[in-house]
Amino acid sequence: MSKLCVRGFSLSLDGYGAGPDQSIENPLGVNGMKLHQWAFATKTFRNMFGQDGGAAGIDDDFAKRGFENIGAWILGRNMFGPVRGPWPDESWRGWWGDTPPYHVPVFVLTHHARAPLVMDGGTTFHFVTDGIESALRQAKDAAKGKDVRLGGGVATIRQYLSTRLIDEMHLAMAPVFLGKGENLFAGLDLPTLGYSCTEHVSTPATTHLIVTKQVH
Amino acid sequence: MSKLCVRGFSLSLDGYGAGPDQSIENPLGVNGMKLHQWAFATKTFRNMFGQDGGAAGIDDDFAKRGFENIGAWILGRNMFGPVRGPWPDESWRGWWGDTPPYHVPVFVLTHHARAPLVMDGGTTFHFVTDGIESALRQAKDAAKGKDVRLGGGVATIRQYLSTRLIDEMHLAMAPVFLGKGENLFAGLDLPTLGYSCTEHVSTPATTHLIVTKQVH
Repeated sequence: MSKLCVRGFSLSLDGYGAGPDQSIENPLGVNGMKLHQWAFATKTFRNMFGQDGGAAGIDDDFAKRGFENIGAWILGRNMFGPVRGPWPDESWRGWWGDTPPYHVPVFVLTHHARAPLVMDGGTTFHFVTDGIESALRQAKDAAKGKDVRLGGGVATIRQYLSTRLIDEMHLAMAPVFLGKGENLFAGLDLPTLGYSCTEHVSTPATTHLIVTKQVH
Repeated sequence: MSKLCVRGFSLSLDGYGAGPDQSIENPLGVNGMKLHQWAFATKTFRNMFGQDGGAAGIDDDFAKRGFENIGAWILGRNMFGPVRGPWPDESWRGWWGDTPPYHVPVFVLTHHARAPLVMDGGTTFHFVTDGIESALRQAKDAAKGKDVRLGGGVATIRQYLSTRLIDEMHLAMAPVFLGKGENLFAGLDLPTLGYSCTEHVSTPATTHLIVTKQVH
């Protein structure tokens, strides 16, 4: 059965999934990049961006698993770009250049309609204006039995968690504190929502956590 | 130089150092015991309470380190007992029976004066009513050059963190979510206060974190 999964989502020890003050220079917020060091060093990520080398091992295994059996993605608007409010024009085409690293349909949550955007390499961005459940339905249809990966950001994951629509999350908790930013856990009661940590392992770069929804 | 240290302080992935609804039956709050499983299994903790066996290894190494070179302790009132408000009498003598596992002077923070309580095995409870800095001064005097261990609870650690009086913390982040309770990190900006994570390692039971204050 197609699942909704978060994969390789990095956060700090104090629960922040991005630093404060996101901007076009700092899409992950101030110090947000520190959270992702584990990923940038892996073979999987380097290959994805056309670079040689990178490390194999536990971090890479998790990075690789993150792309297996994914038939569609869902992204919050801020993951797609820094534009807020109505689209001024069609010029913003994502952070990733002409060939985004998705290669499947990507459903972007927004309050502002926009025509689908067909990119090179199999990625098409669809803009969904009628809510998270509609986005999930559309993504599951597009995924044709494969899983749907929810890319973030924090606010989007929190919406899907609080409605119990996420089946599994792989979080990577970096050994850093951010002190402020967007907190993934604040005010969310994960045990009551049915989530528990079912696997954890640390590497020099991060601690990998698998969080699973209990099936009732 | 004598340092103020937190050692072996257990918390959940979502930052809670104790569960909700602390009571005499549940001194660590509902589900709070889950946080401490790593410790209960160690040789060090079992020996401390007169039991045989227990595991050696990384968890035990951290547990053992927690008692090395400690000349005094500081505890918040709730760590000492469930009594709130003025002491009704002298009958509450701590959670630990006649021979508490401290064996050094212990300074208990409270708003309500009480005579020192001399226990078996070298532990004396002193009740400090004039604040956290006074307690630290008294504890350092009593420790005679050794370190002072701050036992908790969460509110007490937060007070000492926000005044930058803690030199080092060993936290043990259990692979569980609590969803509510007392949060160690909420609203505290550790990087701005000068704290960073300088060591981390996971075991099947927990992830050990060393948090160190930068010296300016």
